[in-house]
Amino acid sequence: MKDPADTVQVLAFDIFGTTVDWRTGVAEQVAEIAAERGVALDAGALTDAWRERYLPSMARVRSGERPWAFLDTLHRESLDELLELFDVADAFEEASRRRLVRTWHRLPAWEDVAEGLHRLRRRYTVVALSNGGFALLVRLIKAARLDFDAILSAENARTYKPDPSVYRMAAELLDVAPGQVLMVAAHRWDLEGARSAGLRTAFVERPAEKGPHGVADRAADTVSDVATTSFVDLAELLGC
Amino acid sequence: MKDPADTVQVLAFDIFGTTVDWRTGVAEQVAEIAAERGVALDAGALTDAWRERYLPSMARVRSGERPWAFLDTLHRESLDELLELFDVADAFEEASRRRLVRTWHRLPAWEDVAEGLHRLRRRYTVVALSNGGFALLVRLIKAARLDFDAILSAENARTYKPDPSVYRMAAELLDVAPGQVLMVAAHRWDLEGARSAGLRTAFVERPAEKGPHGVADRAADTVSDVATTSFVDLAELLGC
Repeated sequence: MKDPADTVQVLAFDIFGTTVDWRTGVAEQVAEIAAERGVALDAGALTDAWRERYLPSMARVRSGERPWAFLDTLHRESLDELLELFDVADAFEEASRRRLVRTWHRLPAWEDVAEGLHRLRRRYTVVALSNGGFALLVRLIKAARLDFDAILSAENARTYKPDPSVYRMAAELLDVAPGQVLMVAAHRWDLEGARSAGLRTAFVERPAEKGPHGVADRAADTVSDVATTSFVDLAELLGC
Repeated sequence: MKDPADTVQVLAFDIFGTTVDWRTGVAEQVAEIAAERGVALDAGALTDAWRERYLPSMARVRSGERPWAFLDTLHRESLDELLELFDVADAFEEASRRRLVRTWHRLPAWEDVAEGLHRLRRRYTVVALSNGGFALLVRLIKAARLDFDAILSAENARTYKPDPSVYRMAAELLDVAPGQVLMVAAHRWDLEGARSAGLRTAFVERPAEKGPHGVADRAADTVSDVATTSFVDLAELLGC
């Protein structure tokens, strides 16, 4: 794009993978809970399999195959299936499963995030725009000590990204045109959804997102207005 | 109440009058705009009359007499009437009237607010819960350099406080019971609405809110779980 600083007023950040390191955070907590219960479990493998079910579970809501359900509910359904598949279903009763679902509520930010957001907030309105439920996002962002100007959840639109209505809802709530919003994400599918709704797009490469065996999206394969390697890099590019 | 620290998890703050000094902020900006246009106008009197139309204009939305309308729209309608009444309608064309409506988007915080919020956020989830539109609130709170964990607008419920549904919407979005939310406000009507929805209530006395000729609500006339004189006082009372 010509100069994003001329038109963009709002930066909308994806959270899971883009802002916080879900794999490290969830796998560590899963390993702890499993250890407490004396269960042998490959926490990294369970976490990877859990996340693999993320997009398909939301796609069923977006297509109308099932009615609106919170991300916590989708996570719980995927977890129940996976504990059977990993042959450890008997070791995790109701209360443990609830704890496991809540591991997604407390995740560490990537190390460049706090500084990048701080600098970007001087010039832009900086919001979270995530498929996590609103309560989940408020908890997660507070626990990670991050400061956004506002938090927006796909819950507000009762569907999930990459449905264009989620991105449009964000622009409407903030009273700006879609083209005045820059969506920042580490995922191709998220930026494609944003672009289809008329938003500008910034890709942040997070090569470690999916752990040693996963394949994260790379800048070379992703169409975006701006390609960056961190939130600090984005701040530099936008002159903040 | 016994000990609010035991049950309360969320503090919900009213904004106009409780957190920011709308009268000083609006009157100063109105005086500036009038001076630019060379109009003699008692800015304080216009501001007071404008605010007097605030509750009645929202009551017409709450009662269903008229469909949902943003606070900016209600402010504009009241302004148009008042400029006629003050006999200065010809002096303010469309662009000036839009500027006047936007004076409500940029208001100074009371001096105890930043410190009080900072201390309270260490222990509680601290949110804004206002009749202002979401975009207005995001702008206002950013311009005043205040940090909330999240911003909630009556817009989300498509009606206005003191309708109980606005307070319940806040508890639902944050995934807590109404009794786990403490509503903080300088207005009796707001706390009465919150109580009717099952929230706890904290009154903050703002004797200067309505200027030298107005009569602000006082603690002695207001039923609440906690009565305070500032956000710092509230932090002390809650052990933050």
